[in-house]
Amino acid sequence: MSKTLIFGHKNPDTDTIASAISYAYLKEQLNEEAEAVRLGDVNKETAFALEYFNQAVPRMVDTVANEVSQVILVDHNEMQQSVIDLDKVTIKEVIDHHRIANFETNEPLYYRAEPVGCTATILNKLFKEHNVAIPKAIAGLMLSAIVSDSLLFKSPTCTDQDISAAKELADIAEVDIEIYGLELLKAGADLSDKSVEDLLLFDAKAFKMGSSVVEIGQVNTVDPEELLLQKDAIKSAITERLTTQKLDLFVFVITNILTNDSIILTLGAKQDAVEQAFHVTLVDDVATLPGVVSRKKQIVPQLTEALS
Amino acid sequence: MSKTLIFGHKNPDTDTIASAISYAYLKEQLNEEAEAVRLGDVNKETAFALEYFNQAVPRMVDTVANEVSQVILVDHNEMQQSVIDLDKVTIKEVIDHHRIANFETNEPLYYRAEPVGCTATILNKLFKEHNVAIPKAIAGLMLSAIVSDSLLFKSPTCTDQDISAAKELADIAEVDIEIYGLELLKAGADLSDKSVEDLLLFDAKAFKMGSSVVEIGQVNTVDPEELLLQKDAIKSAITERLTTQKLDLFVFVITNILTNDSIILTLGAKQDAVEQAFHVTLVDDVATLPGVVSRKKQIVPQLTEALS
Repeated sequence: MSKTLIFGHKNPDTDTIASAISYAYLKEQLNEEAEAVRLGDVNKETAFALEYFNQAVPRMVDTVANEVSQVILVDHNEMQQSVIDLDKVTIKEVIDHHRIANFETNEPLYYRAEPVGCTATILNKLFKEHNVAIPKAIAGLMLSAIVSDSLLFKSPTCTDQDISAAKELADIAEVDIEIYGLELLKAGADLSDKSVEDLLLFDAKAFKMGSSVVEIGQVNTVDPEELLLQKDAIKSAITERLTTQKLDLFVFVITNILTNDSIILTLGAKQDAVEQAFHVTLVDDVATLPGVVSRKKQIVPQLTEALS
Repeated sequence: MSKTLIFGHKNPDTDTIASAISYAYLKEQLNEEAEAVRLGDVNKETAFALEYFNQAVPRMVDTVANEVSQVILVDHNEMQQSVIDLDKVTIKEVIDHHRIANFETNEPLYYRAEPVGCTATILNKLFKEHNVAIPKAIAGLMLSAIVSDSLLFKSPTCTDQDISAAKELADIAEVDIEIYGLELLKAGADLSDKSVEDLLLFDAKAFKMGSSVVEIGQVNTVDPEELLLQKDAIKSAITERLTTQKLDLFVFVITNILTNDSIILTLGAKQDAVEQAFHVTLVDDVATLPGVVSRKKQIVPQLTEALS
């Protein structure tokens, strides 16, 4: 059997990197040749987890068809979030926890999506289904993914399954969830060295919603007000992004990981859809969304509905 | 939790009906209210299995949004093969073994597709994962689905997993696979009471391939030559179907379940794609495809490639 590359979405987050590494490990144990790769720079949170558990950063790739004929997607399925030449290879499997959209295959495949908070929670099941033990470092990465995606279990995307998986993995990884988890989230919320453009784009994902193309960036922080001091610069950067990427809307989500609320800053021709989706009035292109922390569950469906 | 309807594709076959019934049974055991329904008449093969194992024919529905807000799809995912008002309900789960195409959700869901020969093979795993015992009659229906989809293990879609599942299920159902299986297939291959239009359409599925709309009907028989005596009438019926359904292509597949070859009879503006896909020359709109029995694996991908 030929080699398979395993990767998550562009602008990788901790779940994307951890799931690629973990699933590649599982595949190797099942005697399938697989390599975890990434489509972009790792963020500080992910770097913290990789270093903590002494794991190498996966190799970065821009294209895949030049080296393999088949791939496995983790933590995403929408083509515009994936590698640029995805249409030139066979998608053998998908392991994901998002909606399914702009995804299509010619042939049957293994597709495992579950409405849980984190891809690593599904992978935890797959290790069990294949009777493969999870090594300490891999368990640590998988735990990091769950902590990251669930904001330490506070996100509405978090399910009981995520919490039990995290507990099992923390036991194997020999860390205290609360102590390690807060350290991890704080490492990710350190935005001090980021340019305005970095802030907008380091976690941005593009979506097709109806006939519109929408990009949504999100940052976690303990001090949203400090970020908003740069509002004018952020707005300029969004305006430029709207033009270069031919977007109908850009939504920048600033999430306070202490209060679990978000402030959004949004620009674009479809700005009205934001007011409609979240029942808010934008003031100077900004609105507060109390209790909103999840792009997947509390932003994308509502905006998709408004734009469809 | 509100009630969920579970159903397979239009023009139901044995896997679609058996999987809807079996999964509804599993859901009930898990204390989720679910009802198996169907989108069309059951064929003779399915009727044979239901009668053999003394199971009721599921209720027929034309629409679902009038009675439920959520549904589970089995044995299909492409919207055009599903219920007409699917866009008005939430798709909570999909259990399937086909390619993924023309399928999209706004929210995360449970999606379990595996590249095996039959949906019932996946359901057999789900029963185990939930520690629910399969009753004799349900096992009989699931076995029937595997025999039907795999043509008694002779289809190239059949995997080792289908064969092991069939053996387990036959033990529970207390039937001999070969004896029962042949009886089942023969019941399905009895075309004696079918009009030409019935033959074309009773198992037909529509597909979007590139920008084309293609419908593919398939019949299993022990005597293809006898069917071809009605060639002129079949061609008239296809011509009418092309117009009323605005199709670019109709492919009628006559599969010999004794030799495991197929004869295709095809008409439509995109007829050239058939010659290209299967490397054949059509003679009077007919060609023989040696060793071809599976629409899913040996016809749809090749035609999709030719039309993309």
